Amino acid sequence: MKNLLFQISFDGAPFHGWQLQLNAKSVQGEIMKAFYELTGEKATVTGCSRTDAGVHARAYYFNVHTDCTIPCKSFPAALGTKLPPSIAVLQCSEVGEGFNARFDCKGKEYEYLIDNAPVLSPFFADRALLYRSKLDEDALNHAASFFVGEHDFSAFCAAGSEVKTTVRRIFSASVTRKNEFVSFRVCGNGFLYNMVRIMAGTLLWVAEGKIAPEDLPRILSEGRRENAGPTLPAEGLYLDRVFYGSDFLEGQTKGTEYGF
Amino acid sequence: MKNLLFQISFDGAPFHGWQLQLNAKSVQGEIMKAFYELTGEKATVTGCSRTDAGVHARAYYFNVHTDCTIPCKSFPAALGTKLPPSIAVLQCSEVGEGFNARFDCKGKEYEYLIDNAPVLSPFFADRALLYRSKLDEDALNHAASFFVGEHDFSAFCAAGSEVKTTVRRIFSASVTRKNEFVSFRVCGNGFLYNMVRIMAGTLLWVAEGKIAPEDLPRILSEGRRENAGPTLPAEGLYLDRVFYGSDFLEGQTKGTEYGF
Repeated sequence: MKNLLFQISFDGAPFHGWQLQLNAKSVQGEIMKAFYELTGEKATVTGCSRTDAGVHARAYYFNVHTDCTIPCKSFPAALGTKLPPSIAVLQCSEVGEGFNARFDCKGKEYEYLIDNAPVLSPFFADRALLYRSKLDEDALNHAASFFVGEHDFSAFCAAGSEVKTTVRRIFSASVTRKNEFVSFRVCGNGFLYNMVRIMAGTLLWVAEGKIAPEDLPRILSEGRRENAGPTLPAEGLYLDRVFYGSDFLEGQTKGTEYGF
Repeated sequence: MKNLLFQISFDGAPFHGWQLQLNAKSVQGEIMKAFYELTGEKATVTGCSRTDAGVHARAYYFNVHTDCTIPCKSFPAALGTKLPPSIAVLQCSEVGEGFNARFDCKGKEYEYLIDNAPVLSPFFADRALLYRSKLDEDALNHAASFFVGEHDFSAFCAAGSEVKTTVRRIFSASVTRKNEFVSFRVCGNGFLYNMVRIMAGTLLWVAEGKIAPEDLPRILSEGRRENAGPTLPAEGLYLDRVFYGSDFLEGQTKGTEYGF
């Protein structure tokens, strides 16, 4: 039995998130169905992250144990024929028996995309947050720098999530503008539930003058959810890069994506 | 009665083109319906171009004569509330009584977008043509340069179109690459039916070695449709810029968009 690691990308708009659900369309469900149609195997598909409904992924990884003899090189195209255009299968490679796309993940990079214009571009419906007031990307970039480092992110976590620790290390966090689009990028060794969307919402509080960038260390240290900004909508969030492998060293801002 | 000129952009995927149709959704039909809901007027809406089903527009203009007293500044947002997210109203300005968005147009710039990758990005489903074999953008850029100038474009026109003359002036034509995306941009004083899609299809013939770039002058001068390449699908085509105004001089590669 082989253990295969797949790289995919997906437009999250038509899906109720990654995770298999009984009565709603999920990315995992579509993948499992396609895998079954292609191989006849009811395989377990392990994703790198439980992305929420509406969240997008430019790069997402899952692994699956299979007896199927389709060569890795041909697998993406073969699996792609069974999937809707909203899911693209980009790569496939064989990994060690014990490799787990979720637990072996060393880091991730997300983007939160804002269409900073009077009206949302028709090409970004469900793919960016519309924010009409002009944003100062330099000021937001300064504010974002306070996220960098190892912090307890309790204040940036949706209520009710059960995790062993709320401490995460952020390697880089920046805000840039390209024409009307303002992009918040953050790379870290892990993220709590809704963490990026709350970080982005807190940056909008900075933009609105509700808090100063220099308040962020206190908001982090006090660890109270109500001190941080709102959870922004899922449609602006993109999982952009996923890092595996021993060459990904903590403290680096850029790691190496898995062997592809 | 005022004559208002609107700038909009639209994702062409959900529409059967610009032009009003009885039994299919069109951009013009949606605009007329929205205008009626907003103003109570059954107004005639004159578009700058008859874009085909599935063709996109980053900038598109129409004018409308109206007695409505909504100020220009507030009109885009007001009209936008009556339209689907696939149509964005960007600007509105008052123009002279005789101004006609179609006949006063001095030039247009189109982009034909190709996703040059093994698999189509899920974010470009219905918004780019997938072309798997690696394209040499420098070779295609060289080929595109043969389109520049005043030519009879009979060979690059769908059969059955009735026009006074098939002579058009192309100010610029280029092919560039950005990551996996290859873009053909062409700016001219006018375009025949399907002309850009046939030009792009002919460039793919160059890529496939079916013709040489140096064959293009002969293909132009012979004026036979069967000498040129296929009409590429609508989904890759974007109307990008529309030029009005006396400051748009023929021979310039960049003109000035209308007063906005």
